[in-house]
Amino acid sequence: MISIILLEPENSGNVGAVARVMKNFGFKELILVNPKCEINEECRKRAKNAQDILKNLKIVKKILEVDTLIGTTGIIGSDYNVPRSPILPEQLLKLNLKGNIGILFGRESSGLTNEEIDKCDFTITIPTDKRYSTLNLSHAVTIILYELSKQKQNITSGIKILTPPEKKQLNKIFNEVLDCIEFATVEKKETQKIVWKKIFGKTFLSKREAYAVIGLLKKIKEKM
Amino acid sequence: MISIILLEPENSGNVGAVARVMKNFGFKELILVNPKCEINEECRKRAKNAQDILKNLKIVKKILEVDTLIGTTGIIGSDYNVPRSPILPEQLLKLNLKGNIGILFGRESSGLTNEEIDKCDFTITIPTDKRYSTLNLSHAVTIILYELSKQKQNITSGIKILTPPEKKQLNKIFNEVLDCIEFATVEKKETQKIVWKKIFGKTFLSKREAYAVIGLLKKIKEKM
Repeated sequence: MISIILLEPENSGNVGAVARVMKNFGFKELILVNPKCEINEECRKRAKNAQDILKNLKIVKKILEVDTLIGTTGIIGSDYNVPRSPILPEQLLKLNLKGNIGILFGRESSGLTNEEIDKCDFTITIPTDKRYSTLNLSHAVTIILYELSKQKQNITSGIKILTPPEKKQLNKIFNEVLDCIEFATVEKKETQKIVWKKIFGKTFLSKREAYAVIGLLKKIKEKM
Repeated sequence: MISIILLEPENSGNVGAVARVMKNFGFKELILVNPKCEINEECRKRAKNAQDILKNLKIVKKILEVDTLIGTTGIIGSDYNVPRSPILPEQLLKLNLKGNIGILFGRESSGLTNEEIDKCDFTITIPTDKRYSTLNLSHAVTIILYELSKQKQNITSGIKILTPPEKKQLNKIFNEVLDCIEFATVEKKETQKIVWKKIFGKTFLSKREAYAVIGLLKKIKEKM
């Protein structure tokens, strides 16, 4: 289970926005540590359909113990600043997270202190433009949860994409069309093959779309 | 260059939050189409250090022409709903975006209409929990810009891409090919048009590649 832990959040609207995006990505456990703001109308307004997450949130005095505590920091550590030397959000996926996990977000104004970061098992940072690296709290949560939810993505995106045999079938019928046409040189025919392989490769055709493409190519072939 | 285009945004705070995250990820061009909200105190407060983006934003009556218009939709199409059959944000990276690109975000309340989606070269969707899939507008922008920023450097590579008139030429010759073929129903022909518009939209054809495609289509037409 993954909990989102906000340490001394200062802005009610942000807490609501965090609840909303948690619901969007199927996360439930929101913990506020020593909040400096209230769960008020603004908070509920921003949470929209995630009122259940606000209702069930835990308010605690200090960070509860979890199996793995992951800190978030906007300040990228150098080699000489080991505690802050972080991983990237996309690397979270490769860690195969297990057990009771807490992801800790610091105050809007000042983030996490070095002491708080020391309590974390490791930290994540979101790479940003150096000229303005401070993300809004709910934006930072959004990116982390978005990356974490990629594990579930194959189930939720719903669109069926081409299997390798289907790709082969597509290329085969395309080559048959090419064979019906005279080219001035062999190279010109080869160029066509390369261009179209790239086109089909880059488009992430759904099965439905690929059937339409194959259907058209067959019709063209027959007609020629 | 990539512009963020908000269509009829309804909430001033959201516009500010979008400006902020644009600055965080090094994007500059914000365009509001027929906004339903004002650039007010709330907007400026939420934008924090991104006041320059608010100052330079363009307000227009309708969507300006760009080389590639990418729509965003929370409604995931099934395989049989071709116009809304979208790619994932992470797949944007693989497309090797080039030229003048607009990413279009719909109204907070109702997103983009089918007509507006039809104007797009292709669409992106952010996979979410089905029980509550409506992301906050600035959260949706955050995720798209975060993914794009993973390879920002590549965006300005030197390949020349199609201009809108060249795109028209490509579509024209493709439609002429279609006219040579009999379809069982008018709908089947329409589906072909939609599928291929998306294919050409998603592949970011270079001029060189497009000439090869046009060349082949001409040969096919002649042969038929």
